[in-house]
Amino acid sequence: MDKRVGKKTVVFQNPPEIIGGYNVVGPKEGKGPLNAHFDYVLPDTYYGKKTWEKAESAMIEMAMNEAVKKHKLAADDIDYVLAGDLLNQNTTSNYALRQIGRPFIGMFGACSTMALTAAVGAMLIDGGFAGKVLCATSSHHETAESQFRMPTEHGNQRPLTAQWTVTGAGCLVLGKGESGSGQGATIHITAATLGCAIDYGQTDANHMGASMAPAVADTLLGHFYDMGTGPESYDLIVSGDLGNLGLELLKELLDKSGFHTLDNIQDCGCLIYSADQDVHAGGSGCGCSAVVLSGYLLDRLRKKELRKILFVGSGSLHSKDSLLQGESMPGIGHGVVIEVMDH
Amino acid sequence: MDKRVGKKTVVFQNPPEIIGGYNVVGPKEGKGPLNAHFDYVLPDTYYGKKTWEKAESAMIEMAMNEAVKKHKLAADDIDYVLAGDLLNQNTTSNYALRQIGRPFIGMFGACSTMALTAAVGAMLIDGGFAGKVLCATSSHHETAESQFRMPTEHGNQRPLTAQWTVTGAGCLVLGKGESGSGQGATIHITAATLGCAIDYGQTDANHMGASMAPAVADTLLGHFYDMGTGPESYDLIVSGDLGNLGLELLKELLDKSGFHTLDNIQDCGCLIYSADQDVHAGGSGCGCSAVVLSGYLLDRLRKKELRKILFVGSGSLHSKDSLLQGESMPGIGHGVVIEVMDH
Repeated sequence: MDKRVGKKTVVFQNPPEIIGGYNVVGPKEGKGPLNAHFDYVLPDTYYGKKTWEKAESAMIEMAMNEAVKKHKLAADDIDYVLAGDLLNQNTTSNYALRQIGRPFIGMFGACSTMALTAAVGAMLIDGGFAGKVLCATSSHHETAESQFRMPTEHGNQRPLTAQWTVTGAGCLVLGKGESGSGQGATIHITAATLGCAIDYGQTDANHMGASMAPAVADTLLGHFYDMGTGPESYDLIVSGDLGNLGLELLKELLDKSGFHTLDNIQDCGCLIYSADQDVHAGGSGCGCSAVVLSGYLLDRLRKKELRKILFVGSGSLHSKDSLLQGESMPGIGHGVVIEVMDH
Repeated sequence: MDKRVGKKTVVFQNPPEIIGGYNVVGPKEGKGPLNAHFDYVLPDTYYGKKTWEKAESAMIEMAMNEAVKKHKLAADDIDYVLAGDLLNQNTTSNYALRQIGRPFIGMFGACSTMALTAAVGAMLIDGGFAGKVLCATSSHHETAESQFRMPTEHGNQRPLTAQWTVTGAGCLVLGKGESGSGQGATIHITAATLGCAIDYGQTDANHMGASMAPAVADTLLGHFYDMGTGPESYDLIVSGDLGNLGLELLKELLDKSGFHTLDNIQDCGCLIYSADQDVHAGGSGCGCSAVVLSGYLLDRLRKKELRKILFVGSGSLHSKDSLLQGESMPGIGHGVVIEVMDH
């Protein structure tokens, strides 16, 4: 059966259920406005490890293990783990996966990885290839700063356009949805629109919102076109980590395409920190949208404060080396529709 | 419909067809024994670009574009591009995808990426989410040396256990298989077994065969167990890029598990260079198994010299940074069964 709608979108035949999730954040994120929605707040950014890289790997491992335990599953119940991160050669995920012992699909979508893994994970379940999957990603402020910009120890001043990489790891458990029968309501991924690499020529690694906004706009417009919908069809459209400036650019781009600015657009990078936390343009990193989705957004869906959201992870597809070679920063946006279904 | 068999394997209901492929290699690979099976041999390793990284990106872009053209398709016929590579943040693929303009699923499997993208691409087609997909990957000797070991300009001596990273890019076009009707025979992906991250504690980046062999053995044994088969069920079992030493280790591990050494096991890293090309332990890199599969192996399947092969891509999941922090090198093996089907 063909599940494609239009040129970029798929609609699931038996929408996979988001059984639940687990997230771990750093101390700064724990002091932010979404504190009540995090499962575990680290006391410090080292998590008992000698390096920040090892701490990040331990965080994603914890998120995966605890997500399995929290939903009374065993590792053996998981058919595939879809995971990726920002570090060179995906090492955060790779090293964590040694301990999980289940087939591993490594993915790269930069900061859009939560949405990418959720979209592909849902396809594997709806396609009959998996009963349950884990979708996980992470970022760590100190590992990202050192790899993409300057080591934290360098103490350089950040421009106001810069976003603050979230220290956090999030994991979703997706399943076939048979647990839904008998319960009041369950949460499902009903459609997915994967994005293209879009490059508007932005070259400033301290202004990633500008590289990602056009890609998110492209995915949103593609989704609206394929589905015959518009922003008004969703209780909330939530982008991954455009930050304050990127979100403004997204609204401008949508506006120019005839979808006028609405109150129901938000961004995980704007939600995760409060104004007094001095993060400049907002949060970023794979962990940003991962912990906001697996915590705050799932909680609001469970309470039926939101019943249908369009979650579009956003990523900037550059490396430090590519920028040093004079390249620009292509962006990407991957979207999933998440809905509450009553039984 | 549940397509899972055993704990790790899926069997496709309507086995996706390998419509064809295209590959590009560097001059050294072009002088090797598989020369007749390459579509394009670069005159030099720069391909008219200022850096080797840009050359690698141009190579994978060429492989994707030419694969589409060669099979009389348009970019718009492609529903998803699944691609990944060895460079930090997947930049080879990311920058190439700007030009392709189709939804992009970024993947990371280190040198196993050809098999990983083929397995997941086949799932997306058999699951009803795509009509046609591209599966592509690449590596470049000079970009890999600089990133994982020492810059080529450094001129350091390579130990005899080291493999030579292949300069090459390969792309497969997968489709639903409707083109098969009326033709004599077509080539299909009939099953897939995705692997786990397996770590035997190997730490030497100049001996990657030893980190990958246990992971390939684990995937092969899992596949045999799930399918109730053994090595004798396949005309050829071909690993990704274990090299001479890794292939010996794989045979030893299989032997100890009761699957005694057979003539029908080969390795892409052993096939791609001749003994007089002085590559020490053989070829490696994502491009190695990609160009051997999309060239030599597809050609032999087309001629029906081989009718059923088990292709297991192998990857070492480390980074230079992780080794500097004292980590070992987990390996991974992803397998697909490729069969000729008569009509």
